[in-house]
Order: sequence, then C-alpha cells, then structure tokens
Amino acid sequence: MALDQTWFSEAFEKTGSAFSLKAVKLHSEKSPYQEIEIWQTETFGKLMTIDGCTMVSTLDNFLYHEMMSHPALNSHPNPKNVVIVGGGDCGTLREVLKHPEVQSATQVEIDERVTRLAEIHFPELCDKNNDPRATLFFGDGIQWMKDAKPGSIDLIIIDSTDPVGPAEGLFGKKFYLDCIKALAPDGMLVQQSESPLLLLDLITEMHQAMRDAGFAQTHLLHFPQPIYPSGWWSGSIATKQANPLAQRLDEKAIEALDTNFYNVDTHKAAFALPNFVKKALAKIG
Amino acid sequence: MALDQTWFSEAFEKTGSAFSLKAVKLHSEKSPYQEIEIWQTETFGKLMTIDGCTMVSTLDNFLYHEMMSHPALNSHPNPKNVVIVGGGDCGTLREVLKHPEVQSATQVEIDERVTRLAEIHFPELCDKNNDPRATLFFGDGIQWMKDAKPGSIDLIIIDSTDPVGPAEGLFGKKFYLDCIKALAPDGMLVQQSESPLLLLDLITEMHQAMRDAGFAQTHLLHFPQPIYPSGWWSGSIATKQANPLAQRLDEKAIEALDTNFYNVDTHKAAFALPNFVKKALAKIG
Repeated sequence: MALDQTWFSEAFEKTGSAFSLKAVKLHSEKSPYQEIEIWQTETFGKLMTIDGCTMVSTLDNFLYHEMMSHPALNSHPNPKNVVIVGGGDCGTLREVLKHPEVQSATQVEIDERVTRLAEIHFPELCDKNNDPRATLFFGDGIQWMKDAKPGSIDLIIIDSTDPVGPAEGLFGKKFYLDCIKALAPDGMLVQQSESPLLLLDLITEMHQAMRDAGFAQTHLLHFPQPIYPSGWWSGSIATKQANPLAQRLDEKAIEALDTNFYNVDTHKAAFALPNFVKKALAKIG
Repeated sequence: MALDQTWFSEAFEKTGSAFSLKAVKLHSEKSPYQEIEIWQTETFGKLMTIDGCTMVSTLDNFLYHEMMSHPALNSHPNPKNVVIVGGGDCGTLREVLKHPEVQSATQVEIDERVTRLAEIHFPELCDKNNDPRATLFFGDGIQWMKDAKPGSIDLIIIDSTDPVGPAEGLFGKKFYLDCIKALAPDGMLVQQSESPLLLLDLITEMHQAMRDAGFAQTHLLHFPQPIYPSGWWSGSIATKQANPLAQRLDEKAIEALDTNFYNVDTHKAAFALPNFVKKALAKIG
C-alpha cells in the first residue's frame, strides 16, 4: 500500500526505511536554523519534527529522555554541574533535575523556537524550566563549550539532532577536545549515537573520535525508541578517567526518580551489548 | 512526504503507525491460508510479508529468532523435546537445533508454502532442516496440540503471526489448556507477544489467560525488532511449575551457539522490565 498525505512519513534514505504516523499538521515554521513542525498524531500524541525528522512524541519520549540522562548521571560519582547541549524540548533537562545531587543544569540550545514550541505543545516536558537550578541558554553549543571554564562540568549530555545540518559540529574530535577541557577530572560525556542496527559504523567512528580526542573510556548503552529509525537507539558515554563507571544504583534514590522505563534492572540491561555490537566496538584502538 | 509504490508499507491501523522499506516485489501468491509476498529491499535484504504484514527480513531476523529460542531454552532445566507452532520460515528451528541437549524439534506449520518460499529466499534459515532431530510437519497447530501425547513436550515455542486470522486460536485459554496437557511436569511455553509499548493490554491479557489455564508462572522478555510495529517486541514464557526459571547461563555453551544478538548479558537484559511494564503485569491475578 502507498501512504498518502494523511500520514507523516520520515524516510530514512540511507537505510531505505521509513516510519510513519497517522497525523494532522498543527504548525509549521522556518526558524533561522531549521524547519520545525508540530503534528497531532492519532495515537502517539503530539509530534515535533525538525527538517522532516521525528524529534519527540508525547507517547514515547520518556524512553529517550530517561535513558539519555539517568544511566549517565548514575554512572558518575557525583554529578553536580550538568550541561545539556541541544535538548531544546526540555525533556532531558526535566529528567536531570530529578536528581537532588545536581546543583546546576544548563541547557544550551541553538534554536530558541524549539523550546518555545515545546512549552506550548509538550508542557509536561517543560515543567522544571523554572527550577532555580536550571539555566536555559540559547546559542551555539560549539562556541559555548569552547568558552566554558576549564574543569567546571561534571556531565555533558549531547542531546542533538543527527550529525547533518546544525548538529554536525557536535560529532567529532574537534568538539570532543573542547568538552574534555571543560570537564572536571572525573567528568564524562553522553551523546545520542543513533541506531545500533542501522548505523553501527557511525557508532564505532564516534567512539574512535572520542578516544582520539583523549577520552580514556567509551561505553555504549541502548534502548527502544519507536519513532527513531529502526526503533532501537543508543547513547555513548565517554569518560575522562580510566576508572570503571560508578554505577550508583541505589534502589530508593532510583525509585524516587519516578520514571516509566528506567530502573536498576533496565540500567544494567542498557549496557548489555549484543555480540555483533561487541565485535564492532572491539575494533576500536 | 507521501510514500509511493516504490516502498513496501505496513500500516498498523490500531496504533496509527506504519513501517516501510524501499522494495521491489519479487513474488506474490495466495496460499490456502494467506497471501504471501517476497520483496527485495534496498538494505534489509529479502523480506517476506503475510497478508501485508512483515514477517522476516534477511537483515534483522536474527533478533527475533535468537530471542524466541535461546532465552526459553536456557530457562528450562533440560529441554529435550521441543515443538515449534508456526515458525514456517524455519529460523526458530535453526536456533533450537544449535542446542546439543535438544533431541527432537518438531515444527508444526499450517502453511507449507511459507516453508517452501523460505527455502528459496531465506536458505540460511533452512540450513538445519535436514538435521536428523528435525521434523517438519505441515498442519494445524491447534489440532496437533490436542492430539499430542500428554506430558511429552519440554518446550513449546509459539512462533505465529498476530492474533488475527489463522493464528487467532493460538492465543487464549483453550489452546493453553491443550499445551499444559502436552507438556512434561517441568515444561514451559514461550509465545511471541507483540509490542510492549503499543500492545501492553494484549500482553497482560495473554498472561492472564496463561494463568487462568493453569500455568503457574508467566515471565516477559523483550528485545529490539525493527521490522515489527514500534521496533520493540516481546516474548512471554509460561511455566507449568512454580519453580524459578532455570537460567542455565553457561558462558561456553552460549558462545557455541554462535549468535549475533544473544549472549549471557543480553539474556539477563531481556528479562529486565521497564517500570510501566512491571506495573501493568502486577495487576494480573
């Protein structure tokens, strides 16, 4: 069957696959950076797309936001100062601020319109924006990181669009060097790293670039994410020191996060790598 | 964008979502039971669809076949006699026969054409069909289970299409009662149980029906499966006895299975349930 205009479709040309949702367009605008659209879907709630790519849906954003924040935060011995690069829908910021040990969380989003539209269409993701620990900065994450006070950040979360267009500069050794400088000695970075099935080469290249920049260790975690290509997504953690991940898996503290996907078991499960992924990552120097 | 006829699209009406692959149709036939089509996709290899639903692709079938067989086989203390209901593409049979402890594996597929087409288009899945321990029986799984010798089966794997059409009778208390009768005292059943995100009600209803039929315990496992709706799939295990699952996680034996996804870590990870799934399953009486 063909899918007509009553569907939003994202065709992922590189892998000849597409994901579609029955949807009506509510809003469309060209910001200085990209085309942002908001859709009312039949069953996934609201959907935000950027340049035709799915970004966030009401139904399933909890998977991505929880798994891009809590596993990394609970892998750091004491994450006080957190910076989110991208993450304009504020969903990651919201999860980060659930951690009482976090003293400041700065969201560095290039496109203010993403946040303004999230406030309207995804208010539940923005309900911590007025937390006194939160700073919403609108500007270029690459420049921000260059200018950051050396050794001042405990955790950098790179919650960006794909490595094409505005986000391209967030993937690669050059940017990672600035991140290393900005991180405290026990600091770490976590970055969304695409589909383990469809883009394993991108993941291994990213880990290689992280190592080349000077990160001592890299780790992959993975989780379901239905609206992204293949429905299977990953995050990559890079640590400045060679120490094992802290894995602060305190049952009570984790229950208090009030999450839908994340818990002690799914934390561990996210780091359990399939054989084909292990093999690919083993090639990294 | 609209997706034209250069794509195979499966629209999943119940959840207003669709999955598509750039593909050319190679073959189409109406068997006595269903419409079977074979496609050459751009990047997923061959694809078999039944009544318009994706069944198996060259690229990603390993996820489903490994996770529908090895976790259950390694959760049974000594699975000697295995019966697969459905599974006509022979991929599950192939994984089952990797286990040296299995003495017989019988595939009970209603539609012989599925197997004959798999032999042509997915020969790699059929490479164990001539194993002396294998029996390929073509006929009705419901009747087969009714007629099975009581107490003769260690593990039943229900590898069927969705609970509409020919497979409907494989979901529900009536069929489960016949399975319990056919199973040995320490016997168990594993059944594909759809998407945890999109069809959680179906999963809880299935577990309730399994308990109502007399199974002592039910367990859910989950894994990525890109070509199925939401890209996230599950299997449900029901055990005749109340004993904990055996969890035979012998590193060497598991390495010898030569799997792409499955290993000791991903075995454990598959049983790690998200909070929203735990909550739903906790309601079962």
